[in-house]
Amino acid sequence: MATTKIKPLGDRVLVEPLAAEERTASGIIIPDTAKEKPQRGTVIAVGAGTKDVTMEVKPGDVVLYGKYSGTEVTVDEVDYLIMKQGDILAVI
Amino acid sequence: MATTKIKPLGDRVLVEPLAAEERTASGIIIPDTAKEKPQRGTVIAVGAGTKDVTMEVKPGDVVLYGKYSGTEVTVDEVDYLIMKQGDILAVI
Amino acid sequence: MATTKIKPLGDRVLVEPLAAEERTASGIIIPDTAKEKPQRGTVIAVGAGTKDVTMEVKPGDVVLYGKYSGTEVTVDEVDYLIMKQGDILAVI
Amino acid sequence: MATTKIKPLGDRVLVEPLAAEERTASGIIIPDTAKEKPQRGTVIAVGAGTKDVTMEVKPGDVVLYGKYSGTEVTVDEVDYLIMKQGDILAVI
Amino acid sequence: MATTKIKPLGDRVLVEPLAAEERTASGIIIPDTAKEKPQRGTVIAVGAGTKDVTMEVKPGDVVLYGKYSGTEVTVDEVDYLIMKQGDILAVI
Amino acid sequence: MATTKIKPLGDRVLVEPLAAEERTASGIIIPDTAKEKPQRGTVIAVGAGTKDVTMEVKPGDVVLYGKYSGTEVTVDEVDYLIMKQGDILAVI
Amino acid sequence: MATTKIKPLGDRVLVEPLAAEERTASGIIIPDTAKEKPQRGTVIAVGAGTKDVTMEVKPGDVVLYGKYSGTEVTVDEVDYLIMKQGDILAVI
Repeated sequence: MATTKIKPLGDRVLVEPLAAEERTASGIIIPDTAKEKPQRGTVIAVGAGTKDVTMEVKPGDVVLYGKYSGTEVTVDEVDYLIMKQGDILAVI
Repeated sequence: MATTKIKPLGDRVLVEPLAAEERTASGIIIPDTAKEKPQRGTVIAVGAGTKDVTMEVKPGDVVLYGKYSGTEVTVDEVDYLIMKQGDILAVI
Repeated sequence: MATTKIKPLGDRVLVEPLAAEERTASGIIIPDTAKEKPQRGTVIAVGAGTKDVTMEVKPGDVVLYGKYSGTEVTVDEVDYLIMKQGDILAVI
Repeated sequence: MATTKIKPLGDRVLVEPLAAEERTASGIIIPDTAKEKPQRGTVIAVGAGTKDVTMEVKPGDVVLYGKYSGTEVTVDEVDYLIMKQGDILAVI
Repeated sequence: MATTKIKPLGDRVLVEPLAAEERTASGIIIPDTAKEKPQRGTVIAVGAGTKDVTMEVKPGDVVLYGKYSGTEVTVDEVDYLIMKQGDILAVI
Repeated sequence: MATTKIKPLGDRVLVEPLAAEERTASGIIIPDTAKEKPQRGTVIAVGAGTKDVTMEVKPGDVVLYGKYSGTEVTVDEVDYLIMKQGDILAVI
Repeated sequence: MATTKIKPLGDRVLVEPLAAEERTASGIIIPDTAKEKPQRGTVIAVGAGTKDVTMEVKPGDVVLYGKYSGTEVTVDEVDYLIMKQGDILAVI
């Protein structure tokens, strides 16, 4: 897992996207439309939260998030997403 | 009921949809339009809630939810829905 | 009045709609447009309320609610409406 | 003033509309457009209020309210309006 | 200044509009467009305020308010405006 | 700096706009488009604030505010702007 | 880093934009579209915060912010951006 000096602000989370699986465990090819489904990624860094939001995720968690969540950020040539914790559906 | 490592975040609920009944108890075929009605599913996992939302449902509850509620998620080849507790109408 | 195992969530109320009166007490036929007026129904079950909403209605109350309030739900072949308490105008 | 068993919910008020005056005190005919102005009515029953709204009006008050405020309700062949207290401009 | 039995509700203020000045103090004719500028009026009566709004203006204050603020009300053949305190820009 | 009897209400601020600089300090002519940039003005009077807003600016401060902020007001033939403190970007 | 007498108001931050990198560390030319990505800048001055927002960034921090965040401000011929802390994604 990449480590980084990037410190997300407020209730934001820095996520390193995992490549969308091409096939299911049993080998079935996942059609593109399926890739519309929630994406997966690893939490790299977490903000301090806000008055209204207590942070639940922590670095190392693998999370599910909506397809169009977050803002793309490239730092030291690594592509990340910065999103609000509210965009994260679950920890898997 | 499926068990899973998926931990919904905040006030979200992981639901495994139940197949829409094709016939009523007394055998009447339910037309498609009726399937627009609230859907049913079993609660698999529940988030910790948020500052504003205390969780009422628990794993094992059978619930009614709006037709277009939640986001489809497939984990270990099982299809689930992740929705906010606010989308759930009732426990039956 | 029907009893049921349905437990509405949060500030929702389960209502069994009463048939719209066809005639007034003194026999005047109520035109369809009048049926646009608030509908009547009997409260069957009540949620626990939320942080912001204390429940005022109780099972057995006959209530007035806006024409398009609530979601239709059929359980054990009985048609109900699940609505928020905020959609209920008054107890009569 | 009509009395009634209708109990408005939350911050709602049951109002019996007063006929819009046709003429001013000094006999001038009030044009229809003037009838666009706030309407008058008598408060018949008042809800208990809500977490955010303390009730100010009471049965018997004559009030001014916006032209399109409230929902028409007919009970026992008497026409009323059920409106939120927030729609009432003033007590006169 | 007119006195009146009208009691505005909540954070509303009863204002008697002052005629828009036709000329400046030094005699310059004010064009109509200038009359788009804030209007002036005298506060006649003030509501009790709300949970969120403490009343600042009092009867007798001359106030500036936005051109399209408030609702016209005629009582005892006197034209007033009922507006929210939030529509008042300043006391002059 | 003009003094005035105008007392802004709530979180409003009375500002006397400064003429947009035609040239930079080093003499470069500022194009009109640049005048789209935040405007400058002197604070003349300040409201008491509201439940949610504590006032930060004080009479005499020179402030930067968005181009289209506030409402034009002419009192005693002096042109002012009345704006919310939230429209003020900074004190310079 | 420029120092300045500009004091941002509330939860605003004064940022001096850094030139968008033309090439990556390893020399690859960054296409314009990439410049749509979050921008970088140095924090010059910070407001006092508001009732709801506690300030996290401080002068000297290098920050990432959304492409279209903030308002351009030129003071003493230096171009800055004034933005809300909420527009800042992270400190890097």
